[in-house]
Amino acid sequence: MGKKVGKNDIVTLLDDKGKTFLVPVCEDTKKFKGAGVINPKELIGLPYGSRFTVGTKPFWLLPSSLQDKLYGLKRRAQIILPKDIGQILVNCSIAPGQTVLEAGIGSGSLTIALASAVAPGGKVISYDTRQDFIDHASKNLKTAGLLDMVETHVQDVTQKIHHTNLDAIILDIPNPWDAVIHSWKALRVGGYLCTYSPLISQVENTVRAMEQQPFISIVTMETIQREMIVGEKGTRPSFHMLGHTGYLTFARKISEKREIQ
Amino acid sequence: MGKKVGKNDIVTLLDDKGKTFLVPVCEDTKKFKGAGVINPKELIGLPYGSRFTVGTKPFWLLPSSLQDKLYGLKRRAQIILPKDIGQILVNCSIAPGQTVLEAGIGSGSLTIALASAVAPGGKVISYDTRQDFIDHASKNLKTAGLLDMVETHVQDVTQKIHHTNLDAIILDIPNPWDAVIHSWKALRVGGYLCTYSPLISQVENTVRAMEQQPFISIVTMETIQREMIVGEKGTRPSFHMLGHTGYLTFARKISEKREIQ
Amino acid sequence: MGKKVGKNDIVTLLDDKGKTFLVPVCEDTKKFKGAGVINPKELIGLPYGSRFTVGTKPFWLLPSSLQDKLYGLKRRAQIILPKDIGQILVNCSIAPGQTVLEAGIGSGSLTIALASAVAPGGKVISYDTRQDFIDHASKNLKTAGLLDMVETHVQDVTQKIHHTNLDAIILDIPNPWDAVIHSWKALRVGGYLCTYSPLISQVENTVRAMEQQPFISIVTMETIQREMIVGEKGTRPSFHMLGHTGYLTFARKISEKREIQ
Amino acid sequence: MGKKVGKNDIVTLLDDKGKTFLVPVCEDTKKFKGAGVINPKELIGLPYGSRFTVGTKPFWLLPSSLQDKLYGLKRRAQIILPKDIGQILVNCSIAPGQTVLEAGIGSGSLTIALASAVAPGGKVISYDTRQDFIDHASKNLKTAGLLDMVETHVQDVTQKIHHTNLDAIILDIPNPWDAVIHSWKALRVGGYLCTYSPLISQVENTVRAMEQQPFISIVTMETIQREMIVGEKGTRPSFHMLGHTGYLTFARKISEKREIQ
Repeated sequence: MGKKVGKNDIVTLLDDKGKTFLVPVCEDTKKFKGAGVINPKELIGLPYGSRFTVGTKPFWLLPSSLQDKLYGLKRRAQIILPKDIGQILVNCSIAPGQTVLEAGIGSGSLTIALASAVAPGGKVISYDTRQDFIDHASKNLKTAGLLDMVETHVQDVTQKIHHTNLDAIILDIPNPWDAVIHSWKALRVGGYLCTYSPLISQVENTVRAMEQQPFISIVTMETIQREMIVGEKGTRPSFHMLGHTGYLTFARKISEKREIQ
Repeated sequence: MGKKVGKNDIVTLLDDKGKTFLVPVCEDTKKFKGAGVINPKELIGLPYGSRFTVGTKPFWLLPSSLQDKLYGLKRRAQIILPKDIGQILVNCSIAPGQTVLEAGIGSGSLTIALASAVAPGGKVISYDTRQDFIDHASKNLKTAGLLDMVETHVQDVTQKIHHTNLDAIILDIPNPWDAVIHSWKALRVGGYLCTYSPLISQVENTVRAMEQQPFISIVTMETIQREMIVGEKGTRPSFHMLGHTGYLTFARKISEKREIQ
Repeated sequence: MGKKVGKNDIVTLLDDKGKTFLVPVCEDTKKFKGAGVINPKELIGLPYGSRFTVGTKPFWLLPSSLQDKLYGLKRRAQIILPKDIGQILVNCSIAPGQTVLEAGIGSGSLTIALASAVAPGGKVISYDTRQDFIDHASKNLKTAGLLDMVETHVQDVTQKIHHTNLDAIILDIPNPWDAVIHSWKALRVGGYLCTYSPLISQVENTVRAMEQQPFISIVTMETIQREMIVGEKGTRPSFHMLGHTGYLTFARKISEKREIQ
Repeated sequence: MGKKVGKNDIVTLLDDKGKTFLVPVCEDTKKFKGAGVINPKELIGLPYGSRFTVGTKPFWLLPSSLQDKLYGLKRRAQIILPKDIGQILVNCSIAPGQTVLEAGIGSGSLTIALASAVAPGGKVISYDTRQDFIDHASKNLKTAGLLDMVETHVQDVTQKIHHTNLDAIILDIPNPWDAVIHSWKALRVGGYLCTYSPLISQVENTVRAMEQQPFISIVTMETIQREMIVGEKGTRPSFHMLGHTGYLTFARKISEKREIQ
């Protein structure tokens, strides 16, 4: 006897092309673009892992996972992709119970992953200069059931960070170098600063700024991912591949000035 | 006033070349290869983020992070690298509170990352056919302060999995296809199966086996990482790069047989 | 005083998006898809390097180069791209005066590059099982002014190669392993066999077949190319990138059986 | 009846690890580092494709190819690798009969490939500011039998290029942007300028300089190559891979100023 959809669940509907729809059961009937009109209450009691049909279109009914929450969010700004989120989680040593800050919030993809990773007991603080981005991301966070893990602020991270003792800070803003000093102050000793930037010049400015502060283990990396297609005729790499997303730069706070080596 | 080393801490000593040493304060004086003889008790009360000298060699004193635990472990078998661990965490939707199974344990690098990610309330179950690998990995887990999160079994995952309702299963064994049926049974609906294999033929056999069972979203990917060097003269990709580690194949359990499309 | 278009020239018209049109001056007025109606005779006497307008659309007028011939050909089958052609030329040691064989002819892209590289005094022999492909490629070769360098045969390279003493053989066919023995016989000692295959299984079958014959220096490689965008805001890799074309396998003929090592 | 070693040949000795030794038969007995003492005259009359033993070490005896000349040269400076040479040949449309200029000469690897590609009737002009590099490269060119195709000049390409009507110019110098104007003047209309630079800032300065002159089709690319290992247990990408060599920037001369788009 498998698990069944409960009235407080967030359900994933996955179509046969892999498109993901997040359906909080508590919400009202509405139209899901690309799926159709769904009354979430009808899902209650159905067994997870089974097929559910909207109109004539079949979906898999699944308990929503972190991955579903990342793929099912509504994009507005360019999002940070799972391949880069994975690197951020590991290289910033994100763990349950931590307090981490991100800026800007974008569509909330990184926010969702961070919120999932620091729960329970942890907190994500998210700065963005634009209320409309915070509103949009907050809707995604609510749909993902993670809104209560996140504290949002309409605030410019390059002006000031009023939080302290943070475990990690992740910056996805055009000028992360302007937030490096504030970040150093806001981090606990041993905490991680991470920046995500598409351009080489952004990386250079950021690294120079980090080198001026008591940061160690400054490293920049690019992560490239390629799918392998295992077909009937044989196996080959996918012809389709994303050429670039962004460079990730990491640094770690120490309390003394770095000595010249 | 910064945080100071406490008597129950696990301390990271980081040398100027980036080499990491994990020092549990509760342990006795011993020789750390590449660092020298250290009496962990001497660290108590020292401020984190400061310099500590062993003999004439200086180290940064830091609270140990997940990253330190990954880089500071003693390798015996080939380890799964952080770039791949990050993909596993995100694509298997690992979250606090989950119960996940891995096989084999290797040197415990993935074990450490999983244990850190599912704590508190979660559990890592680790199967390996060799007691000596379990013993070696357990030492690394103990040093990392994560031993109580992990349950080890000298057991062959291709013979049977006696655990059930698992959130995820990650297989780093030579013949993962032989464990696909057992994995399907042991997973909860919506749970993830992940395999890590260096060879194409392993990927092919695994995907074929997954396709025979009620799994969806079967996808194989390779992750490549390249460091960017920001030097005085300018910026360029690193000349040094790892050509290949392994392919990651992911699949997700559903409860009905997949229909022919 | 720059060079001017002569009556026997093949002219390149390059539009501002980089699209290339090859116009042999000797041909009659015709419609060039994407450019418009052009009477090639009007080009005679115009200075190379200047602008030429067809209707209202401006083009650069250039003497046609190998690159123009590759980008300007009319595609029917999937073509071998310049990045892979470059590897073939160098790793097969193609040089002026050589006699090289290729199969199949496809749209003639590799044929054009080989013909350009072995001229003068050399020859390209091209086998294809389909007359229509030979006809299509021959048109491209004629437009490129290289038709007299190429000898075509409606023949299956996996059945027999009746030419001998070849400097190189390049196979772009679905089952290159079936032509390995014939290739060995047809090559001169020290000559190169090269196969181009998208699938891993094709590579494996080919390498196994090569290993059975007196070939040495058997090596397979994949070449990936990424454009760098130098923009006003800064520099970054292109977001667009081809994930995969084909694997290139190279081998070199010796006259004795390879000894077991 | 196979071909035999003649008294004017350049012979390749290839050991079982793939190391290449170039032996001009006309030279005197000498010691080849890694091979042993060889009297080239002893090779005369031996059949190509057979085994030849120096002391107890076996070699394959082959007619020397372009590839052998590239792998067999004595390195002094960092060389341009075959993967990049292939791109240069195709993207600069190098063809027999052309006159091309390169600077600097380095160890002569690109020089060898260019000389092979433009022969017969063509010419390679090589500028270098250092006589010792020219001397070293000239020895490699002599061994490769290509010295008479190359004209060397101790001259700084950033000061002046006194040659004109060149088909292509390839710059492997620290500051290629300083030679862009001279290169434009020295090229024929439709000719190619190519620069090879490891650093992003070099690429940026070069592209900016090219954009100031009547050049079109300015494009920068990076070429990455990975070997595939087809082993007994299965196939996988090589663990060893070069992370970076240099970026290649290409541009093509037109005679009018590029119009703003």
